Amino acid sequence: MSQERLIEIETGILSENDRYAQANRQQLTAMGVYALNLVSSPGSGKTTLLCATIRAMGGGCAVIEGDQQTTNDADRIRETGAPAIQVNTGKGCHLDGHMVGHALDHLHLHAGGTLFIENVGNLVCPASFDLGEDAKVAILSVTEGEDKPLKYPDMFTAAKIALLNKVDLAPHCDVDLDLYEANLRRVNPTIEIIRVSARTGEGLDAWTSWLRSEAAAKTAPRAAE
Amino acid sequence: MSQERLIEIETGILSENDRYAQANRQQLTAMGVYALNLVSSPGSGKTTLLCATIRAMGGGCAVIEGDQQTTNDADRIRETGAPAIQVNTGKGCHLDGHMVGHALDHLHLHAGGTLFIENVGNLVCPASFDLGEDAKVAILSVTEGEDKPLKYPDMFTAAKIALLNKVDLAPHCDVDLDLYEANLRRVNPTIEIIRVSARTGEGLDAWTSWLRSEAAAKTAPRAAE
Repeated sequence: MSQERLIEIETGILSENDRYAQANRQQLTAMGVYALNLVSSPGSGKTTLLCATIRAMGGGCAVIEGDQQTTNDADRIRETGAPAIQVNTGKGCHLDGHMVGHALDHLHLHAGGTLFIENVGNLVCPASFDLGEDAKVAILSVTEGEDKPLKYPDMFTAAKIALLNKVDLAPHCDVDLDLYEANLRRVNPTIEIIRVSARTGEGLDAWTSWLRSEAAAKTAPRAAE
Repeated sequence: MSQERLIEIETGILSENDRYAQANRQQLTAMGVYALNLVSSPGSGKTTLLCATIRAMGGGCAVIEGDQQTTNDADRIRETGAPAIQVNTGKGCHLDGHMVGHALDHLHLHAGGTLFIENVGNLVCPASFDLGEDAKVAILSVTEGEDKPLKYPDMFTAAKIALLNKVDLAPHCDVDLDLYEANLRRVNPTIEIIRVSARTGEGLDAWTSWLRSEAAAKTAPRAAE
């Protein structure tokens, strides 16, 4: 297949996705729901961090979980009391706007609350697919190594904030956290970065403060109006 | 775009890939080169493990490195003395047969040696693309958690062997290595599993013995002939 034909197909898929994403965004905005798309490698600790985040937020959260197989993650989320819908992508490598739209039809959202969309663990493909979220959150485990932002730049360019997770493991790894942050800022100079540990609770206050402040900025009446 | 049209496009891409992969396989077999396709999440420690493996093998190795960006990994490999070619996939999420064929045109292979193809860090897409290798090697960091084989089953079904890497970190994580192995065998009952640490050298002898034995089996004269 020619490169031109592949580009044409890719453009077609992405513009179709954007229509679904835009409909999701309108629905979420109408309800005053602040929506985040959580992206990372497999095993960065997204779900554990999300459970800790939901408990710290104390209510108003809902979750869409993306995985190739199993309902493990949605089951774990529901144990926190938050509603969750699992989307299994089968052979698919990312969530798309259409899948998220279907999930929204069945998810109990709180008006003015927060929606977390936990994407399939993949540092490449989810970068290209808008789901209708307000921002992408990139989660990295410190065990992955400082070079990851440079090797997978699209994802970190697309993200508004990076959570450097599992910092409790840093003393046991050959990892330089300052270099990790410098590499994130090389690919995205305006990215916010918070060091966290879902295990010890380190950084959770800073992360939930950021969340509350961003959600409030979305729903606050605009000063100029 | 309809699901039928997407399936048709996917089938077209895969059958084109298979032609390139088959040409690679013929070239490698003619040279008696044993070829492995190394697949994993980003940050599982593939490159560090590969450097340790090349040093332990004592010669005859060559490497094709796949990453979205940077030549960091090929540079690290060349420090071991082995020849290496870096393939940057840009926005691409996997190596394909065509890219590997181009790299083979420029790589100095040792007749009777070993070729390692380090794929883009991604537990989803590389499972579907034959590169002409003899076997896929799945590398997992113990920090990723025991549930990964169940959540990304295609990759572990496609792999002949799994290397459970960074076992030196296991005492610092909430991870059950026996359950990790049981989950691997649930999705692939015949998969070989070796626990390794590129940092401490644990398991490297078992891994290089497996490698030598598989390579010898490929090139040995067939008893029945």
